[in-house]
Amino acid sequence: MTIKEYLKSRGKLVDEALDKYLPGGKSYPSVIHEAMRYSVFAGGKRVRPILAIMTAETLGCKAQRVLPAACSLELIHTYSLIHDDLPCMDDDDFRRGKPTNHKVFGEAVAVLSGDALLTFAFELIARNADIKGVRPGSVIEALRVIAAASGTGGMVGGQVVDMLSEKQEPTLPVLQYIHTHKTGALILAPIMAAALLCGAGLKEKKALRIYGENLGLLFQIVDDILNVTGDAGKLGKSVGSDAARKKVTYPALFGIEDSRRKVKDLRAMAKEAAACFGKRAAMLNGLADYVAERES
Amino acid sequence: MTIKEYLKSRGKLVDEALDKYLPGGKSYPSVIHEAMRYSVFAGGKRVRPILAIMTAETLGCKAQRVLPAACSLELIHTYSLIHDDLPCMDDDDFRRGKPTNHKVFGEAVAVLSGDALLTFAFELIARNADIKGVRPGSVIEALRVIAAASGTGGMVGGQVVDMLSEKQEPTLPVLQYIHTHKTGALILAPIMAAALLCGAGLKEKKALRIYGENLGLLFQIVDDILNVTGDAGKLGKSVGSDAARKKVTYPALFGIEDSRRKVKDLRAMAKEAAACFGKRAAMLNGLADYVAERES
Repeated sequence: MTIKEYLKSRGKLVDEALDKYLPGGKSYPSVIHEAMRYSVFAGGKRVRPILAIMTAETLGCKAQRVLPAACSLELIHTYSLIHDDLPCMDDDDFRRGKPTNHKVFGEAVAVLSGDALLTFAFELIARNADIKGVRPGSVIEALRVIAAASGTGGMVGGQVVDMLSEKQEPTLPVLQYIHTHKTGALILAPIMAAALLCGAGLKEKKALRIYGENLGLLFQIVDDILNVTGDAGKLGKSVGSDAARKKVTYPALFGIEDSRRKVKDLRAMAKEAAACFGKRAAMLNGLADYVAERES
Repeated sequence: MTIKEYLKSRGKLVDEALDKYLPGGKSYPSVIHEAMRYSVFAGGKRVRPILAIMTAETLGCKAQRVLPAACSLELIHTYSLIHDDLPCMDDDDFRRGKPTNHKVFGEAVAVLSGDALLTFAFELIARNADIKGVRPGSVIEALRVIAAASGTGGMVGGQVVDMLSEKQEPTLPVLQYIHTHKTGALILAPIMAAALLCGAGLKEKKALRIYGENLGLLFQIVDDILNVTGDAGKLGKSVGSDAARKKVTYPALFGIEDSRRKVKDLRAMAKEAAACFGKRAAMLNGLADYVAERES
């Protein structure tokens, strides 16, 4: 199986699971469930849940063992996008080529649907305890990893520093903080949560952590490069917006050439960490290549 | 111990625990931690965490057994107030006599501090598993109860219907939905979560559920009555705001006299449910009286 086939197949599995887990769009009060579903099914690539599934499969477990927790990460990612797009935050009218949640449902419902997705995400992680063979204790450990990665020590912290940085001269420590927290934390969390749910050993967890940290940084720097050099049509969003907002990014600090060299290094380090899984590392390796080479 | 002394003593316990659990106001990035603490320590009465503690003590357990989960409910309550006060929602400048979160920290930080409090609430529930004698499985059950009470099947659902109702003719089913979901769910949740964490039996859980349902409704109707007849100075907020907004409330539908009769009935039903705990029901009874007679 190629990585593209894998992403398609596991993406479909995630889509079906999300549709099954989320309250129906007609359940009362319907507007909030419609709004939640609108953003969850607005064309996300399901990177975070797929990472959890890929980790489980690398460790010899089935996707089903981590599926609720995997999907919770897509809900957390989606809630963060809905709130980020609000007029008082980034004030974006479009995301992935579609009107943003508050443009369709109004700001009040957008705030509440983000809140509801975040709340439901934790309910979903707890449901992972219903799966045969999963210890309740490991579900709690996974939940703590995901909560820590989503809060002020993770994604929200990264978002706050990113906001503050728009008013300041960019520096490398600030850039690194934003990268590891705003995006990196929610790339690493599905990997580590799946490792806990699958009972990974210390050596495996260490390798997965290094893989995840490098992948997260790789993901963000490629994103920043695409914001400078990308094709707006393929991306489904405007290019050059980071520069216009004077956002601190890797290309802004070090230029495109240096950023591309960094991408190459990170890809190599991620694959080196995955090497201990032997043949089972095929998809981890494929993903590192795919992220490094992606155009959207 | 009188109920007033009990509320004061357990309120102090909750305040100290919240101060210990929450990240310090100077932890990086400090603005978000300051904003979280600003609203958490803005004079809340700690009703929800005290209910969890009172339930534990009624069942013969120590407060410490449920303390993290109890505090999580105050964080969820606080996040909901911060988001409710936003300009796109109720647009309130003051709460408990103090400027609202977004008036002090700006809208973006207010949205994020609500998000962070909600996220941290779930991390805190998970920490309840560190307490000696608490089974991980019961923590997961308690977490599910709290998540369900906070999401679209609970508080958020009630908030949505409340918003929609401002544009419609008030009806009893809509009023009942709002009462049981917007306020009632987060009054019942601490009681049921504590019952799970303390290993309550079926009969005890049933009695506590009836008590909690009646108490929640009692709490809300008294709130609505105070919004009509209360003293703005004692309440720390303006009176008559519900009528100005044409909010569907019990007094608006049935008048003050009928609302006061309902308060009397609910208080009696709550105390009847608590009767099965014998002498241990003293504080449950005291609280029903206190809520029915409160002036702020």
